[in-house]
Amino acid sequence: MATREGNEQSVLHRVPPLLTDLYQFTMAYAYWRARRHNEPAVFELFFRDNPFGGGFSLFAGLSDCLLFLQNFTFSDDDVEYLRSVLPADTDAAFFTYLKELDCSAVCVSAVPEGSVVFARVPLLEVSGPLAVVQLLETSLLCLVNYASLVCSNAARFRLAAGPRRRLMEMGLRRAQGPDGGLTASRYSYIGGFDLTSNALAGRQFGIPVAGTMAHSYVTSFSSLEEVWPQTLVPCGGAGPIDFICLVKGWLGRVCQLLGSKPNLIREGELAAFLSYAIAYPQNFLPVIDSYSVSRSGLLCFCSVALGLDELQYRPLGVRLDSGDLCRQSLEVRRVFKECSKHFSVPQFESLLIVGTNSISEQSLSELNKKDNEIDVVGVGTHLVTCTRQPSLGCVYKLIEVRGRPRMKFSEDLEKSTLPGRKSVYRLLDTDAHPLMDLVCLSEEPAPKAGVALNCFPLGLDKTVQSITPAHVASLRLEVFSRGKITFPLNSASESRERAQISLQSLHPHHRRLQEPHNYTVALSERLHSLVSDITIGNGKGSNFLLSN
Amino acid sequence: MATREGNEQSVLHRVPPLLTDLYQFTMAYAYWRARRHNEPAVFELFFRDNPFGGGFSLFAGLSDCLLFLQNFTFSDDDVEYLRSVLPADTDAAFFTYLKELDCSAVCVSAVPEGSVVFARVPLLEVSGPLAVVQLLETSLLCLVNYASLVCSNAARFRLAAGPRRRLMEMGLRRAQGPDGGLTASRYSYIGGFDLTSNALAGRQFGIPVAGTMAHSYVTSFSSLEEVWPQTLVPCGGAGPIDFICLVKGWLGRVCQLLGSKPNLIREGELAAFLSYAIAYPQNFLPVIDSYSVSRSGLLCFCSVALGLDELQYRPLGVRLDSGDLCRQSLEVRRVFKECSKHFSVPQFESLLIVGTNSISEQSLSELNKKDNEIDVVGVGTHLVTCTRQPSLGCVYKLIEVRGRPRMKFSEDLEKSTLPGRKSVYRLLDTDAHPLMDLVCLSEEPAPKAGVALNCFPLGLDKTVQSITPAHVASLRLEVFSRGKITFPLNSASESRERAQISLQSLHPHHRRLQEPHNYTVALSERLHSLVSDITIGNGKGSNFLLSN
Repeated sequence: MATREGNEQSVLHRVPPLLTDLYQFTMAYAYWRARRHNEPAVFELFFRDNPFGGGFSLFAGLSDCLLFLQNFTFSDDDVEYLRSVLPADTDAAFFTYLKELDCSAVCVSAVPEGSVVFARVPLLEVSGPLAVVQLLETSLLCLVNYASLVCSNAARFRLAAGPRRRLMEMGLRRAQGPDGGLTASRYSYIGGFDLTSNALAGRQFGIPVAGTMAHSYVTSFSSLEEVWPQTLVPCGGAGPIDFICLVKGWLGRVCQLLGSKPNLIREGELAAFLSYAIAYPQNFLPVIDSYSVSRSGLLCFCSVALGLDELQYRPLGVRLDSGDLCRQSLEVRRVFKECSKHFSVPQFESLLIVGTNSISEQSLSELNKKDNEIDVVGVGTHLVTCTRQPSLGCVYKLIEVRGRPRMKFSEDLEKSTLPGRKSVYRLLDTDAHPLMDLVCLSEEPAPKAGVALNCFPLGLDKTVQSITPAHVASLRLEVFSRGKITFPLNSASESRERAQISLQSLHPHHRRLQEPHNYTVALSERLHSLVSDITIGNGKGSNFLLSN
Repeated sequence: MATREGNEQSVLHRVPPLLTDLYQFTMAYAYWRARRHNEPAVFELFFRDNPFGGGFSLFAGLSDCLLFLQNFTFSDDDVEYLRSVLPADTDAAFFTYLKELDCSAVCVSAVPEGSVVFARVPLLEVSGPLAVVQLLETSLLCLVNYASLVCSNAARFRLAAGPRRRLMEMGLRRAQGPDGGLTASRYSYIGGFDLTSNALAGRQFGIPVAGTMAHSYVTSFSSLEEVWPQTLVPCGGAGPIDFICLVKGWLGRVCQLLGSKPNLIREGELAAFLSYAIAYPQNFLPVIDSYSVSRSGLLCFCSVALGLDELQYRPLGVRLDSGDLCRQSLEVRRVFKECSKHFSVPQFESLLIVGTNSISEQSLSELNKKDNEIDVVGVGTHLVTCTRQPSLGCVYKLIEVRGRPRMKFSEDLEKSTLPGRKSVYRLLDTDAHPLMDLVCLSEEPAPKAGVALNCFPLGLDKTVQSITPAHVASLRLEVFSRGKITFPLNSASESRERAQISLQSLHPHHRRLQEPHNYTVALSERLHSLVSDITIGNGKGSNFLLSN
C-alpha cells in the first residue's frame, strides 16, 4: 500500500528529519523539559490566499509528506550535531529521547493530492505528541508549499493553453537546484502538463519525456563534409541511398517553389539536419532558428523532411525558439501547406510546430487569442519559478492541545488562526459544481444534502448566510495512522487525473484565470462562536491573567 | 584537494547524470552516429543580464559543479532507462559507449566561487569531447543558475541592511523542496548572511544556526499550571528559587512602572515564557507578538527577563513577527531603557530585537531610512524565492569545435553568442576598483598594466574605446583537468569571505542597489573582428551554401 505505482520514488530518496528549522528543536526541548512533550496536540496546514490572483489552487506534495513521516527518525550523527548546536545547558536525556523518536503516534488526515482547494481551508491535519508534531512543521511545509504552487501554476498554464495544445515542461536549468527541478517536473505534470524534458523525472515518476536538439547541435556543424554516414536506407528495405544528394535535389525544388535564394542557406545548418535525420529518421524535429528561420532553417527542414518522406519516413516537425512565435508559426505552416500541395505530400500540412520562447501564462493566453499554428508549447522559467508569485505561503498552526482549542492572535488580523479540531465539507449545487467549503468543528454532525444550514463566510465578518447544499462531500481522508500510510500513495498520473476531474467540476466563474468569482469558504455557527469566545477572552484559549 | 573543509558535503550527496534534458542524449547519439562525439569542443556558461535591476552579480555553484563532474558516470539502470525512451532505431552500441563515459577528458576553467561578475562575461569554460560536454549542459546550468541568483540576492540584502545589522536566512519552508532549501541556505550565507534557521544546512555547510521559538510554542500554553519545573537554580550555584513567584513579583513592578494593566496579560504567554526560560535560562529570546506586544508579550518578556537577571542569567532579547516592525522596535527599546534605568539593569538597554515579517530588499532599505531598533533581521520568502526576479537565465553555448569558432545567430539579436575560446581580464584603476572586464581570444597576449589598448564595449555596437588599466587580473582559473578537481574546493565561509572582499573592491557607483552605473564589458579588437567576420559570413563559422 505504501509504494507508488511502477518504480516511482520520492523526490529525494529520503528527506532527512534534520531538514527543519533549529527552533523546532529548541521548542521540542522546552516541551520535553516541561514534561509536555507527549501531550496530545493537533496542527493544521493551510494557505491564506489563492496564488496568482486566481480563484483556486491545487493541493500537492502529499505523497512526499507521507514518505517523510514514515521514515522519520534521527540518526546518531543527527543527534550529535544537535547536541553541538543546542545550548550547553540542554539536559543530555533529551538527546536519548530524540534518538527514539518516530511518527508511530502520529495521525494525519488530508485532502487527496491533485484536489482543487481554496485559501483558509485546512488541507492537512496532523495530530500526535506535542513535541513530535511540532518537529514536523518545517519539513511538511517545505514539501507542500512549492509542490502545490507549481502544480497550481501548471493548471493555469493548462487552462490558458486550451485542451488541444500539448504542454511540455522544460525548466530544470532554471529551478532551485537538482531537486527543485525534479519537484517542478513531477508537480507540473500533475497540474496538467503532458511532457517533460527532464530525463530523471521521466524515470522516477513515469512522466513522458521529449526533446530532440538544441542550437549547439546545429552550430557544431559547419560543412556537409561532417555528415556521416551520407547514406540512408529507405524505410522498409532496399539499399542505402545517397541522402545528401537526394536532399540537395529537394533543396533546389523547395527554393524554386518558394522563390528563396539558395546562397543564403547555412551549410552547417543543412549538415546538422541531414546528420540528425540520418541518425533518427523516425524522429526528425529540428530547431530551425539558429541562423534565420525563413532564409535558412525552414528551407533546410523542408528539404530534409521531403527527402525523408521520399524514403517512406515520417518527419515530425520543427521547433521555434526565438522571435515572434505566432507570426513565424503562420509562415511555417504556410510553407508546409505549399510544399504539401505542390509536392503531393498530404502529411506535410500537419507537421508539428513546437514553440519555446520564454512562454508565460499571459503570453500563452495571448497566443490563444492570436492566429497561430503552434501545436506544442514548451515552458521553462515562468512555470518552475512561478515568476508571478514564487511562494504559496502555506502555514502550519497549532489548533488544539490536550483537547483544548488553541488560537493565535496577531497584530496583523489576517495572521490569526482558527482554533479547534475541524471537519471540512464541500457543498455542491444540483449540477455537482462546488458551491462552498464549510469548515466545522469535528464534533459537529456533517451537513446534510437538501437541508438548509447557517454559516459565516470568511472575510464577511459577522454576516450569517443560509445555504442548502444539493450534495455534500467530506474533503479530507485519513492518510496516516500510528506510523503507517493508510491511503494508497498515488502515482503522478493518478494525481494528474484527479486534478483534471477536480478542475472540471469547478464552475467556470471560479475556474477562470482573470477576475474569478470569489469561492466561499465559511465557518459553521459553532466554529464561529468558538472564535468569538476565544477572541473576547471568555473561551478555552489563553485566559487573561486575572490576578498576580 | 577535492574535499571541502570540515565535513561539508555537496548539496545533494550525488547529482545523478540523468538529471538533464532528454535532448542532450538524442544529440549525443547523433554526434556519436556521425562519428563526431570525440571531436574537441568548447562550451561557455554566462548570463545575459545582471539580476534584480542591479549592476553586478555573484558567481556561485562552482563546487557543486566540480563534484558533479568528478562523479559523472551512468549506472546500468540509467542506461536501461535511456534505452527505453530513446527511439527504437537507436544503435545498441551507443548504450555501451554511454556506460563507459566519464569526464576524464574534460577540462574546466572558471571564475572562483563568490567573485563579483557581470552579464555577458563567460564564467565557466568547459572543454572536452563534443558529446560529453554537450551532455553536461543542463546539470551545470541547474547547479549555477539558482546558486548565483540567490547568492546575488543575499548580497543585495546585505548591502541594504548595512554592515551592523545581522541577517538570518529562514526560507526553508518556502523554497523549491528540500534541496532548494539547502541550496538557498548555503548560497545566502556565501552572499553575506550571518545565520540560518536550517539545521541540515548548519550541519552540512558549517553555517551558524539560530532560532528559539514559534507562535505555536506560545499558544500551546494556557495556564501557569503547565509550567514545570517551577523553580530555577541561580546561575553559579545556590538552591532552587520559585521562579514563577519571582517573576510574578517583577510583573507587578513592570506593570506599575509602565502604567500597564495586568489583567490584559495572557496567562498562557507568561507560562510559555517562564517555561522556556526555565529550560534555557541562557538563551531566552521569545517571540512576543502571539497576542498583543504592548499589552501582553512585552510585559511578560520584561518580567521573565528581569527574573533571569536577578538570578544572574543574561536574557538575549525578543522577536517581533507581525505588524509595523520599526514602530514596535522603538516602543520595545523605550521600554527596555526604562526598565534598565528604573531597575538598574544596564544590559537591559542593549537587548537584541529580532524582526522577521516578510522582509524584502525594499523593506530592508526602507528600514535603514526610518528610525528603528532592530538588531537582527530574519528573511525567508523574498530571499529564497528571489521574488523580484526568480531566475538568472544562465546559458551554456558552444563556442568552438575542432579549433574552429562557433556562433549562434538568432531572430533575437541579444540571443546571439560570442564565438571562439577566450580569456577574460578584469582591468582595474589606480585605486584597484574594477574598471572593465575585457573578453579576448585566448591566443591573444594579456593586456598590460599601464599600456593603452583599444576595445569595443558590448551594447555600444561599433564604438571603439581606448583604456589604460592600472592593474590587470585574469578572471578565470583552471579548476578541473582530465577528470580531476585541480583547485581547492572552497568551504562556504571561504567563498563568503571572497564575496565580501570582491564586493568591497567595486566602485560604489557600480555596487549601489538603485540605478547603478553600467559596468563595462568589452571585446578585444580581435574578438570583435571575429564576430564581424562570422556575422557577415566570411569567417570560420557556418558558411553559406554557395552551390547546390
